[in-house]
Amino acid sequence: MIGYGYWGPNLVRNFAEVIGSQSLSLSDLSPDRLAIAQRHYPAMRTTTNYGELLADPHVEAIAIATPVSTHYDIALKALKNGKHVLVEKPIAATSTQAAGLIEAADRLKRVLMVGHTFVYTGAVRKIRELVAGNQLGTIYYYDSVRVNLGLFRHDVNVIWDLAVHDLSIMDYVLASQPCAVSATGTSHLPGEPENIAYLTIFFEGSLIAHLHVNWLAPVKLRRTLIGGSEKMIVYDDLEGDDKVKVYDKGININHDPESRYKMLVGYRTGDMWAPQIDTTEALRTQVTHFVHCIEKSERPITGGDSGLRVVRILEAASQSMSKRGEVVELDTKGPTA
Amino acid sequence: MIGYGYWGPNLVRNFAEVIGSQSLSLSDLSPDRLAIAQRHYPAMRTTTNYGELLADPHVEAIAIATPVSTHYDIALKALKNGKHVLVEKPIAATSTQAAGLIEAADRLKRVLMVGHTFVYTGAVRKIRELVAGNQLGTIYYYDSVRVNLGLFRHDVNVIWDLAVHDLSIMDYVLASQPCAVSATGTSHLPGEPENIAYLTIFFEGSLIAHLHVNWLAPVKLRRTLIGGSEKMIVYDDLEGDDKVKVYDKGININHDPESRYKMLVGYRTGDMWAPQIDTTEALRTQVTHFVHCIEKSERPITGGDSGLRVVRILEAASQSMSKRGEVVELDTKGPTA
Amino acid sequence: MIGYGYWGPNLVRNFAEVIGSQSLSLSDLSPDRLAIAQRHYPAMRTTTNYGELLADPHVEAIAIATPVSTHYDIALKALKNGKHVLVEKPIAATSTQAAGLIEAADRLKRVLMVGHTFVYTGAVRKIRELVAGNQLGTIYYYDSVRVNLGLFRHDVNVIWDLAVHDLSIMDYVLASQPCAVSATGTSHLPGEPENIAYLTIFFEGSLIAHLHVNWLAPVKLRRTLIGGSEKMIVYDDLEGDDKVKVYDKGININHDPESRYKMLVGYRTGDMWAPQIDTTEALRTQVTHFVHCIEKSERPITGGDSGLRVVRILEAASQSMSKRGEVVELDTKGPTA
Amino acid sequence: MIGYGYWGPNLVRNFAEVIGSQSLSLSDLSPDRLAIAQRHYPAMRTTTNYGELLADPHVEAIAIATPVSTHYDIALKALKNGKHVLVEKPIAATSTQAAGLIEAADRLKRVLMVGHTFVYTGAVRKIRELVAGNQLGTIYYYDSVRVNLGLFRHDVNVIWDLAVHDLSIMDYVLASQPCAVSATGTSHLPGEPENIAYLTIFFEGSLIAHLHVNWLAPVKLRRTLIGGSEKMIVYDDLEGDDKVKVYDKGININHDPESRYKMLVGYRTGDMWAPQIDTTEALRTQVTHFVHCIEKSERPITGGDSGLRVVRILEAASQSMSKRGEVVELDTKGPTA
Repeated sequence: MIGYGYWGPNLVRNFAEVIGSQSLSLSDLSPDRLAIAQRHYPAMRTTTNYGELLADPHVEAIAIATPVSTHYDIALKALKNGKHVLVEKPIAATSTQAAGLIEAADRLKRVLMVGHTFVYTGAVRKIRELVAGNQLGTIYYYDSVRVNLGLFRHDVNVIWDLAVHDLSIMDYVLASQPCAVSATGTSHLPGEPENIAYLTIFFEGSLIAHLHVNWLAPVKLRRTLIGGSEKMIVYDDLEGDDKVKVYDKGININHDPESRYKMLVGYRTGDMWAPQIDTTEALRTQVTHFVHCIEKSERPITGGDSGLRVVRILEAASQSMSKRGEVVELDTKGPTA
Repeated sequence: MIGYGYWGPNLVRNFAEVIGSQSLSLSDLSPDRLAIAQRHYPAMRTTTNYGELLADPHVEAIAIATPVSTHYDIALKALKNGKHVLVEKPIAATSTQAAGLIEAADRLKRVLMVGHTFVYTGAVRKIRELVAGNQLGTIYYYDSVRVNLGLFRHDVNVIWDLAVHDLSIMDYVLASQPCAVSATGTSHLPGEPENIAYLTIFFEGSLIAHLHVNWLAPVKLRRTLIGGSEKMIVYDDLEGDDKVKVYDKGININHDPESRYKMLVGYRTGDMWAPQIDTTEALRTQVTHFVHCIEKSERPITGGDSGLRVVRILEAASQSMSKRGEVVELDTKGPTA
Repeated sequence: MIGYGYWGPNLVRNFAEVIGSQSLSLSDLSPDRLAIAQRHYPAMRTTTNYGELLADPHVEAIAIATPVSTHYDIALKALKNGKHVLVEKPIAATSTQAAGLIEAADRLKRVLMVGHTFVYTGAVRKIRELVAGNQLGTIYYYDSVRVNLGLFRHDVNVIWDLAVHDLSIMDYVLASQPCAVSATGTSHLPGEPENIAYLTIFFEGSLIAHLHVNWLAPVKLRRTLIGGSEKMIVYDDLEGDDKVKVYDKGININHDPESRYKMLVGYRTGDMWAPQIDTTEALRTQVTHFVHCIEKSERPITGGDSGLRVVRILEAASQSMSKRGEVVELDTKGPTA
Repeated sequence: MIGYGYWGPNLVRNFAEVIGSQSLSLSDLSPDRLAIAQRHYPAMRTTTNYGELLADPHVEAIAIATPVSTHYDIALKALKNGKHVLVEKPIAATSTQAAGLIEAADRLKRVLMVGHTFVYTGAVRKIRELVAGNQLGTIYYYDSVRVNLGLFRHDVNVIWDLAVHDLSIMDYVLASQPCAVSATGTSHLPGEPENIAYLTIFFEGSLIAHLHVNWLAPVKLRRTLIGGSEKMIVYDDLEGDDKVKVYDKGININHDPESRYKMLVGYRTGDMWAPQIDTTEALRTQVTHFVHCIEKSERPITGGDSGLRVVRILEAASQSMSKRGEVVELDTKGPTA
């Protein structure tokens, strides 16, 4: 395990429970962080030099939870040293880097997985199941809102920080690939990256996606609407209960005035159903899946390719945003640049 | 009163209560609609020929609730016949038409008012009071969601149907004028107007606005976030109570890890306050204001100029949407075209 | 129609739409109230002397929306004059009176209906359908909360004002009859009737019901929980949507620690389903049903007998409340007293 | 620390962070549970014989998280061995036992504290502050609902399991002492303790309290209403945000019809304010307070006396429940029995 900052402790906790802390080695640049980790997991080996982990033949796999700018270098070295790699999202700082990691993992026959954690939640897996089972009919739109309480970052803009979650969910849930992006946004603090952004993502046909991400909201919101010709979904990750609601009716072509009136005064036009959602911690499922893929030499659900697809959109959105919404086509063949 | 379709009965009911139904004359092309109106208001005069109303010297003012494509012609004739005019939103089908009505009203010294009804709700008036009183500090963004349940229209797209409400609210609440628009959207029914749209509206400086309008949502949503440097507002028109919530804290520049952690797990960082909102029916307030402006020869809060500003954005957004988000500058001097 | 106070106008409006205002006669003691009614319904006959209505051979039926203390006298006279009677809830001020009305209606073969309006809502009809269809399994409890915002009455206590609604719903929904009542409550204004009350209603077996009614709450609440061995219902009348939610699981006898833990941290243990609810105005359905029963000589769903059963519990609860919860047995054969 | 079942691990975790795990000794009857604890806290001493802890002169204080039937014996021995004692709620199985513990602690000058954990939450402390600061005016009622999802216990009824929380909060928040109890409830599983119960608690004057506790609800609810002559509080422990809402208006004596109508259609009659709540873990605050009281020889906020007051009501309520609500007077001088 490399990196014990904000997210690393969650990974360590889950790896400790899945494979045992005595099987773990941790590196971090900060001796203080290592001391904290050591207190919780006395059986775990620690070092400030991650090169030791990469060089250690007993180390089979490397999990990387360091700043995004370092993902590519560390992951590439790890792959070249014959390690399987789990890297935090986004997989790399550019699509060129992401493509490079995929190429290396393929060539060296190592597992390359990206930590698209939301994909491993019960809610998102249920949504994927409903969409893949064609319960929604033709998908018309994917609309999500992910807004936060003024927690600014200085290294990346809000798209790279928050939209990465929604893009990884969308990549998993929808069957089709996007072809272009138009994004707008701005920064409210001089010299800082954009803290509010709106992404429209175009697909072939009439499917459209839109993300609203914002570091500066009065309330936390996590809501996704998925509209289909047969059914529609409201996915609210903050609901203690009923995270996924499925609504029976899509478009109402019926134009008789009475039913039109009922829709005007009413709130919906069919039954609603909220399936029970598996509440297993997503990171536990993710870590277990990583171990499973190594043992069985299988491709992870969130392999390097999904990491690349997400980074392509992040890049294109940042480009479009700097030009006030000018559309940027997505090259789905190679790296964006 | 001209037009007794969906909205007309609400206007008639309020005019009947404010000035008395015996002072009302109603015209509609449909004798059936007139018969219905007559049953409710036997003292009201009715006709299928609105020209009679325009020609009648006893008629002081005309309220127009007809399809938007007819607004300009009827309103212009009414003004030229010396009538004061209240016209439903949007004021006209083009900014050129809107400018023409303003010019005529100014020249003929008649009251020209547009039915931006939300401006007359207790909630929006309270928000305006808070913003104008500088309670929010510098305004950073205005973000609204107005989505409906599959009630399609065939004559106009969803921007002209739904965004017109948010634009009229925004025009009333914010002090500054927008300078450009980028919009995206699509139609999911072949040959029909766009049923989903996203508008980003740029202002001078870093203020940004965004509207999401959608005819095809599983649930009805009416939520606006207004972010300021000092306070933020959540305005949810569907809350039975607490339509307007004011949150104490804006950006948190404090970066100490403990408070950062609390924001990550918490939901907000200051007190919240939900002022009591006047629940008087907005249309009653609007109709009363129209009568008042006629009697006192005052300019209405929602005069022709606000109608024009809103139509300019509607036009620019439709243009931008047809070009997948290409920015369209707003000419704030004259008509858009 | 006798009585044009708070509720009367709603009845008149619905009768006007169902049978036409020209077929209506209205009496009220106040000429001012009659003038208001006349303005809205010029074709309706009005009088300050309700005796005229009772004496008029053209009047087939009488609807009574006067203070509860007058229900018995007016309804009895109406029945004796050969009229069918719809009387507002509660049907009478005592169970003896209620029994008297039933006896008279039976003897004179007239329709006697009580305005248990909630029984005619789409939500309550859906609940009844679910319970009667044995979807919930054995019913374990019925728990309702109906609290208001400081609207005190001087003539009756909060049980007679608010619990009457819940008792009428319960009477309609549950198959079994209650056998005893224990109630507590108090008044917070000297000399005024109790403004807060709690009723426990015992049935044969382990079924138990409980009502919380309160005139002095900070928020309006209208929530009923119905627990069954197979499914449970949450009925929240204030939800714009999803008024009736059905939960899949009842008691969890499974005691394995993992599932127990999930219940501790989770919010439920099965699917939830919110059926679409008919949104027709309840009073319209009620008035239509009254007319139907007269035409077809049928017994109403909310006949005098349901009115009597509700009044018996109201009486017993008031008695128990005055003795701090001492249980009062319900005589289900005759009048309470 | 004695007992490492459901609650013990939470206590150990907090003690480990407040005083360090090397200063902790743990006993539990199960070697398996001790092994789990040892894995997490290798520096902590463990034993299956709690007598060792009581006999150890280095042990200053004992925290007891064992079944309630054992509280009295263990706590009494600990006090007699000169230890300070923190005992989980309820403090003992009877009021006689609770009084015995208080007497022993007083005589031996040891700290005796009961784990009324809710008292140490930010929400309850804020409510106490508002009540004690006379912000609510005269308190009229305290109404709470605490319902769960089918998690049955076999050793105690639902009152001892759930109402103990509300009683401990009420004891802390309200200034006055209750004088009588009327409770009703039932069991829906043959041979099992009551799983649903309703408690009315009478005070001198018109203050009244009511608790609804239920193991068999379709949804989890945790809501308390506190009504005062000046302000009212809604405390919802399940709200991510806004756990405590303060409403401006209490009783509305104003009887003008217009304001009455607004209350009928509206949802409240004044401003609402949701103060920010300290989100520090309650158990951390509780453990810190226990350590503080030992060091400073101070009486805890939740000392033995509060434990006794709560047990008195639990006893009285169980008595009353077995007699279908017959009122049971509370002897506030000595033990109940």
